[in-house]
Amino acid sequence: MQRRDFIRRGTLTGLLAGAVGPAARPLAALSSGPAPRRLANGDIRLSSNENPLGISEAARQAVIEAITVANRYPRDQQDALVGQLAAAYGVAPAQIVMGVGSSEVLQMAIQAFAGPRTRLVLADPTYEDAITYQRTHPYEMLKVPLDSDHAHDLGRMREAVGSDGRPAVVYICNPNNPTGGITPSSAVDDWIREARENVFFIVDEAYIEYVDDPAYHTALPWVADRPNVLVVKTFSKVYGMAGLRLGYGIAHPATAARLADFVAKNNTNQLALAAAGACFGDEALIRKSVQVNQDAKAATQGVLDELGLEYLPTQTNFIMHRISGDLGQYRNRMAEAGLLVGRPFPPMLEWNRVSFGLPEDMDRFAETLREFRQKGWV
Amino acid sequence: MQRRDFIRRGTLTGLLAGAVGPAARPLAALSSGPAPRRLANGDIRLSSNENPLGISEAARQAVIEAITVANRYPRDQQDALVGQLAAAYGVAPAQIVMGVGSSEVLQMAIQAFAGPRTRLVLADPTYEDAITYQRTHPYEMLKVPLDSDHAHDLGRMREAVGSDGRPAVVYICNPNNPTGGITPSSAVDDWIREARENVFFIVDEAYIEYVDDPAYHTALPWVADRPNVLVVKTFSKVYGMAGLRLGYGIAHPATAARLADFVAKNNTNQLALAAAGACFGDEALIRKSVQVNQDAKAATQGVLDELGLEYLPTQTNFIMHRISGDLGQYRNRMAEAGLLVGRPFPPMLEWNRVSFGLPEDMDRFAETLREFRQKGWV
Repeated sequence: MQRRDFIRRGTLTGLLAGAVGPAARPLAALSSGPAPRRLANGDIRLSSNENPLGISEAARQAVIEAITVANRYPRDQQDALVGQLAAAYGVAPAQIVMGVGSSEVLQMAIQAFAGPRTRLVLADPTYEDAITYQRTHPYEMLKVPLDSDHAHDLGRMREAVGSDGRPAVVYICNPNNPTGGITPSSAVDDWIREARENVFFIVDEAYIEYVDDPAYHTALPWVADRPNVLVVKTFSKVYGMAGLRLGYGIAHPATAARLADFVAKNNTNQLALAAAGACFGDEALIRKSVQVNQDAKAATQGVLDELGLEYLPTQTNFIMHRISGDLGQYRNRMAEAGLLVGRPFPPMLEWNRVSFGLPEDMDRFAETLREFRQKGWV
Repeated sequence: MQRRDFIRRGTLTGLLAGAVGPAARPLAALSSGPAPRRLANGDIRLSSNENPLGISEAARQAVIEAITVANRYPRDQQDALVGQLAAAYGVAPAQIVMGVGSSEVLQMAIQAFAGPRTRLVLADPTYEDAITYQRTHPYEMLKVPLDSDHAHDLGRMREAVGSDGRPAVVYICNPNNPTGGITPSSAVDDWIREARENVFFIVDEAYIEYVDDPAYHTALPWVADRPNVLVVKTFSKVYGMAGLRLGYGIAHPATAARLADFVAKNNTNQLALAAAGACFGDEALIRKSVQVNQDAKAATQGVLDELGLEYLPTQTNFIMHRISGDLGQYRNRMAEAGLLVGRPFPPMLEWNRVSFGLPEDMDRFAETLREFRQKGWV
């Protein structure tokens, strides 16, 4: 399988199929640079779905080299990265809009498609950014509870969009944050295929590289001839660049241009562009990130099983698990033990989202959770 | 003079007064890191008002150290920089809103104060970002030509705002880009003092550190009790961080909170925050940037005088000068000579804005201009 094919498909299934290709390198040969430090006070942050490995050695070197252009506006370098992304995805550069993280891309979309009595339909719970950004616009927001599989309830979401012809924006986070599971891609495809033109789909694929469920695939092919579909990607997760703030959207050229009306000018950072150019599509990096995540996931699920704490199946770098008692108290107790764990995601206030750190971080999480059990706290 | 006093005053006059203080170091002891390279093809970019010195050595070291947190979201580090800025300016942290360059702060303000039939009043020509960002909002935009001194014509701008009580946003770029001169601060103060509450002032002080005209001072004191004043600052100019995309606005806390409704979440880059923390208020760095700029300015004015080409007095790191003939042709000819010079700023299409590079860059500019004269092109 070619690198481009992997990038287009973008899931672990595709990745592992490609691991025998010429780009494959043994895991042991990889370096991801100096060991990322914990927070200044020694705490371990398991609350923000960050990649504990840090950025790759190639990205690190690229950052250092790019310091010499830190005084220069980034237009040329942004054009170069857009060209690299476009070639990998098999789209035109005019179909890509860069953002300060995927978050700014979501902001552009929410702003660009806002209008009086426009419906915004999303899952409950889901990633909060679309909810945050709609506050300054006259949307009618409709939150639709996840279904019994903790997937997007696409049937009820379709009902929420309605058949009265009013414009709508549909946000689909797939896999979903904070629950971690996928919504079957064929069902998403069915809806996009049948939807009217003024139903605008934002498909957020921030965690796509971690997915190995065969029922999942990217929504990217839709953007070729559907101006009402935006696929959102990020360098914050598998590439470990959350602090460098770089994401992007891929859409029909007309849609990308409309989104760009709402971009902050010169929004990309030279050092982030350099890092991204150096690590995008690096199969060995992705494989290592995914493998370390799998190990941390196994350790985490192990202790949750041991303690009989329910959790949701996850295709991401985090897991949602039941706690006993008050979430605020639980998080405070974890913080006292030096572990920062995920924020409240109403209405799931009897659950906690914990991000996967390094396997040894999860061992400490496991020890802490066992201590909590001994104290009768979970 | 204390460092904080300099930062509050923020102009060269204040800086030089402070040069005898304990923070003063001889120019020769300064290093600003490895020599910034020219563009990849050897061209010299004199078109974007960038600082040719690059970022400081302290900033460079801070960037390299911060690579270990490139995988972490920047909230803690942003809070730290905001605290540092707030202490230096003598304002509360809640009065500061960070942006991806000052440009995103302008975007937030244009979005936050937009409304049907709200007037946007600005100079013609001035920096274009406010014009760009208003396109997606229902402003009535009123461009007021600069006065005969190439300063903002505040009298005509006040007339444009009108006395009918309609809300207005006033953008004052001081010193003005692309013309380079100041608008007397006392006249700006008079207007702010007398303006009604629904006239919102954006005072863009991107070039403040280069100013040595005693008729200039920051508009910052107004933000203490005037919710209708926003002062915009940047790390892109004297600090040489244009490629790291970091700027900020200072306002009344209520205004800052309103602006933050329009911010892209987690918009600041870890490496930019680290660089900014390491160089903000570094008097030696500022003195060197300003001195090199003065030298380049003298060289540039020298050749313009020699060739009898009119130019505008500048208090910035660029200068607007007359050309003979077509601007597009002039820029193409400069580009063929390896010099990228400023874009069109209608209606001043018989003028060109050239940014100050290193003194040797301006020597090459001077040689090129002399060749143009020999060919009868200028």
